[in-house]
Amino acid sequence: MSTSVLRTADAWWVLTPTGAAKVHTSATTTAELLADRPAIDAATTSTDTVPVDDLALVSPVTAPCRVVAQMTNFVSHVKDTNGNPDTVPLTFFRKTSGSISGPFADVVRPGHVTLLDYEVEIGLVFGRELPVGTTVTADNLAEYVAGLVVTNDVSARDLQLPKTQFYEAKSYPTFTPVGPALVLLDADELKRFTDLRLKLWVNGEPRQNMLATDMIYTPVQALQTLTRFQRIDPGDLLLTGTPVGTALSAPPKPVMFLVSLLPPAVKWRMFFKGQVQNPKYLKDGDVVEATVATDDGAIDLGRQRTVVRYAE
Amino acid sequence: MSTSVLRTADAWWVLTPTGAAKVHTSATTTAELLADRPAIDAATTSTDTVPVDDLALVSPVTAPCRVVAQMTNFVSHVKDTNGNPDTVPLTFFRKTSGSISGPFADVVRPGHVTLLDYEVEIGLVFGRELPVGTTVTADNLAEYVAGLVVTNDVSARDLQLPKTQFYEAKSYPTFTPVGPALVLLDADELKRFTDLRLKLWVNGEPRQNMLATDMIYTPVQALQTLTRFQRIDPGDLLLTGTPVGTALSAPPKPVMFLVSLLPPAVKWRMFFKGQVQNPKYLKDGDVVEATVATDDGAIDLGRQRTVVRYAE
Repeated sequence: MSTSVLRTADAWWVLTPTGAAKVHTSATTTAELLADRPAIDAATTSTDTVPVDDLALVSPVTAPCRVVAQMTNFVSHVKDTNGNPDTVPLTFFRKTSGSISGPFADVVRPGHVTLLDYEVEIGLVFGRELPVGTTVTADNLAEYVAGLVVTNDVSARDLQLPKTQFYEAKSYPTFTPVGPALVLLDADELKRFTDLRLKLWVNGEPRQNMLATDMIYTPVQALQTLTRFQRIDPGDLLLTGTPVGTALSAPPKPVMFLVSLLPPAVKWRMFFKGQVQNPKYLKDGDVVEATVATDDGAIDLGRQRTVVRYAE
Repeated sequence: MSTSVLRTADAWWVLTPTGAAKVHTSATTTAELLADRPAIDAATTSTDTVPVDDLALVSPVTAPCRVVAQMTNFVSHVKDTNGNPDTVPLTFFRKTSGSISGPFADVVRPGHVTLLDYEVEIGLVFGRELPVGTTVTADNLAEYVAGLVVTNDVSARDLQLPKTQFYEAKSYPTFTPVGPALVLLDADELKRFTDLRLKLWVNGEPRQNMLATDMIYTPVQALQTLTRFQRIDPGDLLLTGTPVGTALSAPPKPVMFLVSLLPPAVKWRMFFKGQVQNPKYLKDGDVVEATVATDDGAIDLGRQRTVVRYAE
């Protein structure tokens, strides 16, 4: 059965039927906590609990760690950006782990950013090291993936598109809300990965809602490629891509073609002029909620609720 | 006066007029060594030296550390890729620090890579932490930048171009040869940054040769943007871009335009078919040498010599 791990500023907790039970551990990082599985297991049967709502939850994934992310990994999202899901390559980029923030923290838009967007994603949290050359298969995946988290891959589109490399646009502090729970799964539960549904709302309005069956590259495929070049350690985080429904949506193909003939500076000026009128980009005070769960509720990563704040 | 720091598997060394003097320090990482400046300074006046040629040098920058790199940062390189130097944005991407290798180590081309390319770059090594929001100016740059290294930003072009994100294509083990020396500079020496000349040869044939005056964004400008989103710690490494002369060179603009109308899969197939006939890509046994120095020799980061090996 899955185990939901929570974190506050000074302690780790496990969700039980009667509330949150403290994990008696000296772990201060996610890697150290995952290495102290007996302490986690002991907490699951504890009856000394507190109401979860009394806890000020922070990200259950601690920084520093590696944050790797997959580009365009949902059929619906690729089609929405005028791509071809049959030929889109399996592609990774990095985010800073300094971008990790809590599941109820503010998302801060820096003063120089104009087009702030959201992307609900399933995050894989690793529990075991994967040196370069490790062979990951469907049969051993659960030995490496300790659990899953809800994440939001917050993106400054006005930086991301002209710069082409995604690293800066997705790496500002608070651009990776994580949690509330790190849900530890056994091998059978992890096999239900594609039954997970990703949902995101802005001010209660549904924006994203898609099953992970829409994913192009599975976690096994992603890790087979990632481990060709990137070492992974316990506590590292892999974001697996977002489905259709972000604020950014490509214009129709004939428009794209005409625009492609313009010099880059003119092209981006036109594009951004159109996009600032797009009401879907995040505004000061917007409430972003995100969930990931199976429809039957057997696996539930919880609900994240962040508020957007414009920096001065 | 500049100080050239070298590293072997089990010790740190400083270059003196009579040879390499051992640094008496317990430091095992570059960050720890930079924090033990008295030990470095003591070694500079030591007469107990060994010939440098007797040392098996490894990278003076130790992993793990952050490796951040600047995209297209030389006027000559941007023009060569059909870009406009006046509008090219200041852009960063990440490399894995697992890609760091020694200045005389082999560069290993993985079996699935076909188009292996070189990029000589000046590496900045940091000596002091820069939290997000740190203000870097021409006047305080030397407080943060401890020294410079020769680096080669080895790139698998056949992965880099279709995937668009540079992270994987530049992150395989041995894809960042570093050294031989970490050259510590004082503030006045660092002001001569643009006097540095980057040179790279393949089998003795000159391929790259350009002064850093050709750079679009200076280290100060780069750090002013980087510190908006990325924390930097001592021992971290920033690659500052490469000049014209890599194997990859864009086709003429009319060809580019016609090719842009094709579907991506067809476009890349055509492009790679042309590129495999390009004799400049690195072949098994190729010797790549790279240097960075001022023309008057006052600042000299040394000569790197790596041999390309194709994996089985």
